[in-house]
Amino acid sequence: MQDVENRTPPPSSPSGAATAPLSFRDGNQDIDPAFVDAVSEAIRAADAPRLQHLVEDFHESDLGDLLEALEPEDRPRLIELLGPAFDFAALTEVDDAVREEILEELETSTVAEGVRELDHDDAVYILEDLDEEDKAEILEQLPPVERVALQRALEYPEGSAGRRMQNELIAVPPFWTVGQTIDFMRETENLPDTFYEIFVIDPGGHLLGAVPLDKLLRSKRPVTIQSIMDDDPDRVRATDPQEDAARLFQRYNLVSAAVTDEAGRLVGVLMVDDIVDVLDEEADADIKQLGGVNSEEELSDTVWDIVKSRSTWLFVNLCTALLSASVINAFSGSLQKMVALAVLMPIVASMGGNAGTQTMTVAVRALATRELGRANAWRIIRREMVVGLLNGAAFALLLASVAVLWFGTANLGPVIGLAIVVTLVSAAFGGIVIPLALSRLGVDPAVSSGPLVTTITDVVGFFSFLGIATLWFGL
Amino acid sequence: MQDVENRTPPPSSPSGAATAPLSFRDGNQDIDPAFVDAVSEAIRAADAPRLQHLVEDFHESDLGDLLEALEPEDRPRLIELLGPAFDFAALTEVDDAVREEILEELETSTVAEGVRELDHDDAVYILEDLDEEDKAEILEQLPPVERVALQRALEYPEGSAGRRMQNELIAVPPFWTVGQTIDFMRETENLPDTFYEIFVIDPGGHLLGAVPLDKLLRSKRPVTIQSIMDDDPDRVRATDPQEDAARLFQRYNLVSAAVTDEAGRLVGVLMVDDIVDVLDEEADADIKQLGGVNSEEELSDTVWDIVKSRSTWLFVNLCTALLSASVINAFSGSLQKMVALAVLMPIVASMGGNAGTQTMTVAVRALATRELGRANAWRIIRREMVVGLLNGAAFALLLASVAVLWFGTANLGPVIGLAIVVTLVSAAFGGIVIPLALSRLGVDPAVSSGPLVTTITDVVGFFSFLGIATLWFGL
Repeated sequence: MQDVENRTPPPSSPSGAATAPLSFRDGNQDIDPAFVDAVSEAIRAADAPRLQHLVEDFHESDLGDLLEALEPEDRPRLIELLGPAFDFAALTEVDDAVREEILEELETSTVAEGVRELDHDDAVYILEDLDEEDKAEILEQLPPVERVALQRALEYPEGSAGRRMQNELIAVPPFWTVGQTIDFMRETENLPDTFYEIFVIDPGGHLLGAVPLDKLLRSKRPVTIQSIMDDDPDRVRATDPQEDAARLFQRYNLVSAAVTDEAGRLVGVLMVDDIVDVLDEEADADIKQLGGVNSEEELSDTVWDIVKSRSTWLFVNLCTALLSASVINAFSGSLQKMVALAVLMPIVASMGGNAGTQTMTVAVRALATRELGRANAWRIIRREMVVGLLNGAAFALLLASVAVLWFGTANLGPVIGLAIVVTLVSAAFGGIVIPLALSRLGVDPAVSSGPLVTTITDVVGFFSFLGIATLWFGL
Repeated sequence: MQDVENRTPPPSSPSGAATAPLSFRDGNQDIDPAFVDAVSEAIRAADAPRLQHLVEDFHESDLGDLLEALEPEDRPRLIELLGPAFDFAALTEVDDAVREEILEELETSTVAEGVRELDHDDAVYILEDLDEEDKAEILEQLPPVERVALQRALEYPEGSAGRRMQNELIAVPPFWTVGQTIDFMRETENLPDTFYEIFVIDPGGHLLGAVPLDKLLRSKRPVTIQSIMDDDPDRVRATDPQEDAARLFQRYNLVSAAVTDEAGRLVGVLMVDDIVDVLDEEADADIKQLGGVNSEEELSDTVWDIVKSRSTWLFVNLCTALLSASVINAFSGSLQKMVALAVLMPIVASMGGNAGTQTMTVAVRALATRELGRANAWRIIRREMVVGLLNGAAFALLLASVAVLWFGTANLGPVIGLAIVVTLVSAAFGGIVIPLALSRLGVDPAVSSGPLVTTITDVVGFFSFLGIATLWFGL
C-alpha cells in the first residue's frame, strides 16, 4: 500500500519518522491511507508526542486534507491533542461542513486561542459561518485591537472583497525614500507574513499609489517612493463582490490589490491565493449547478443533507417530466394506433435535450467569464441557430433512414426528420436565449437554465414528433 | 448606449480622447460597443494616429478583448496599423481560433518582430500552435540566444510546466550577502519584468533554495543569502503536467515556483498568473465536457467547426438513444395494450438521468480537484447508493400516487414506484462507479462519463418500468 520511494516529496512530508518512513502523500500526490491510519491510532491512544511528530512541519493545506481524511469524531481530538502546535489556518482549507462540525465540538476558548494566531483574513473565514452567539463569545476573548478589526470585516456583506481581504499591509508616505522604506521594513517586527507590494497613502489614509517589491529592490536608496510608485494602481472596493475582484486579478495578472472604502481610503489588501480560491469556488459552483447539484454540496456532507438538496432538483425535474408526459398523453390515441411512435419519441426528446444542453453550457460559461455580453450576444444567438439548423438537418437525414429501415414505414422518415429539425432549432434557441435572459434579470443562469431548457426540448420534442405524425398519418 | 459616468474607470480607459469621452469598458466592466465601433471606423479609415490614441496605455488583456470584439477581417489590420505600438502579449489573451486566424494573416516578419519583444512564456504560447513551417520561419528571424531558449521550451511536451514557465529569473550563489544581492539588482539592466523571489543555485546550476523578496527586504545587508533561504522550496519538474503544477500552487498558496530539469537544475520559473489561467482552462474543459461540448470549443469558433465538434457528441447520443428505443421496442406488445405505459416511461428515464448526472457531476469534480481518491472512494460509493435509495423511495411514493390518480389504475402505483427505486439506485451506482473506473483507466472522466451514465439510466429506466409492468399486469 505504501509508497516508500516518494519521488517528489512534498515540502510537508515528515522528514524522518523514527519507526517507519511514512509519508502523507504518495508519488501520485494522493493521500496515503497508511499515514491516515497511523494518525488515527495515535489519536485513539491519545499519544500527543507521536502525533506532533507525525504532523511536524505540515503545511496548513496538508493539515486540512488530513483532517478531512480522518473519521469525524477524531478531528476535534486531533486539534485538542496537538494543542498550540495545531495551526488553525488548516480550518480554512477544509469543507464548510467539516469546519462547522469541528468548531461545534471545540471549546470556544480553544477556538479563540487558535484564531488569535491567524492572519486577519483566515480569522474572518473561520468566524463568518459561526452562529452569532459563538461568534460573539470568541470575539470577546480576543484583544480589543484584533476584535475591532474582525468586527469591522464581518460587517462587509458576505462574499464581498472586504471579507476576503487581509488587513496586514505596509503603507508609507510618498515623500519617503527607498532607503527609508527598506530600513523601516528591516526594523519593524510586526510585518505581514507575505507581501508583494507596499502602498502609498496620504495623511488621511487615502490610497495614492503602490510600489511592487521588485521595483523597490531595483531602485537606489535616495530615490523617493513618489517617483517610482504606480499612481493609478488596480483597486477593489471593499463592498465589491469577490467574483468581480477575481476577474480583475485574472484580467490584469495581479498578485495583490489594494482594497479601499467608499472614500478611497486604504482598508486592506487582497492576495492572489485567496483569489485562486474564489475562482475555484466559482467554477465549482457552475459545474455543480449545471449538473443539478446545489453549489454548496461538499464531499463531506451527510447523507441527509445530500438527500434534501438533491431532491429539490429531482422534484423540479419531476414537474417538467409530468408536463412532457401530459403532452404525450394528449396523443395517446395516435400512440395506440402506431406503437412505433412510442418507440421513437424518446430519441427525438433526447437529441433535443443534448443539443440544448450543449448550447446552454457554452452560454452559461461564457456569461460567467464575461466573454458573452451585449457586444456579441446577437452574433452568438444567430450562430447557435445556424448550428442547430445544420445539425438538425444532418441528424434528420440520418434518423429518418434509421426509422424507415427499422419499421419499414416510408412515411416515418419525413415525420421524424421534420421533428428533429424543429426540436434542434428550438433547443439552440432555448439554450442561448434562456441563460441570456436570466442573466439580464439578475438570476444566476447556471442554476435555473437547465430545467427550463430541458422543459422546452422535451415538450417541443414530443409535441412536434407526435403532432406531425398525427397530421401526416391522419391518426 | 454609452456610459459616460464611468464609476470605476479601469486602468486602461483612454484618459482624454479629444472628440468624445469614450471608454472601453462601461460601469459594469462590459465592453462598450460604441468604443469598438470607433476602433473599427479608425481601422477602415486606416487612421493610425487615431487608433494609437484610442488604445493608448491599453493593458494586453484589454487589447486582447478588443481584438475579439472586432470583425475578423479588422483584427490583423489593427495590428498592422498599430505597428510597434501593438503589444503581442495581447495575442496570449485571445481565443486560440482568433490567434491562429490573425497569425495566418500577418507577415512572418511582423510576427517575429512582435514575438521578440515578449516574455519567454508568452512567446512560447504564441509559437506552440503554429504549424512547423511558420514556426521555423519565425524562429529563424530571432537572435540566436532567444531562438535557442524558445526551441528548448518547445521541446517539452505540450501542456507541461516547461511550456508555461518563464526563463527570466534571478539566481544568486548562496554565499552572497543581502547587500550584494540588492546591489546586483540595482545595477543590472535586464531584470525580469516581475518576480517575487530570487533563487539560489550552486555552480552547476542546481537549485539550492529560494528567498521571497519580502524576506530579502526585511534582512540586514551583511546577512548571507544561505542563512535566510528556504532550502527546500516548492519545485516543479519541467516535464510535469501543468495541471499538477497548478494543484501545487493552489494547495500551498504559491505565487511563483522554481522549475527544474531531471537533474535538479533550475531551468525556469512558473508564475501564479499563468497558473490561474491553467486552473481556469481546466475548469472550463470540465464544464464543457460535462455539457457534451468539446473542451477546445471557443466562442469565436466558426459555425462549421462547431457543427462538426458538437455532432460527434450528438451522434454518440443517437446511438445510446437507439439502444433505449430498442429496449422499448421489445415491449411494444405491452405498450399497445396499455398506452399509459408510453406516457409514463419517459418520466422514469428522465428521473434516472437527472439523478445519475447529479452523482456523476459531484464525482467528476471531486476527481479533478483530487478530493476523491482511494482513501475515501468506498465511503463515497456507499453514501451515493444510500442517497439513491432514499431519494428513490421518496419519489417512488410521490410518483406512484400521481400515476394512480392520473390513470385510475391502482396497480400502476407499485409498478412505477418499484421502477423508480431500481432506476435511481442504478443511477447512483453508475454515476459514481463509472467516473472512478474511467479515472483508474487513465481516461478523463469528464469526457466519457456522461454518455455511459445516461445509457445506463435510460436502459435501466425503460427496461425496469416496462418489464415490471409486463410481469405485474401479465401483458
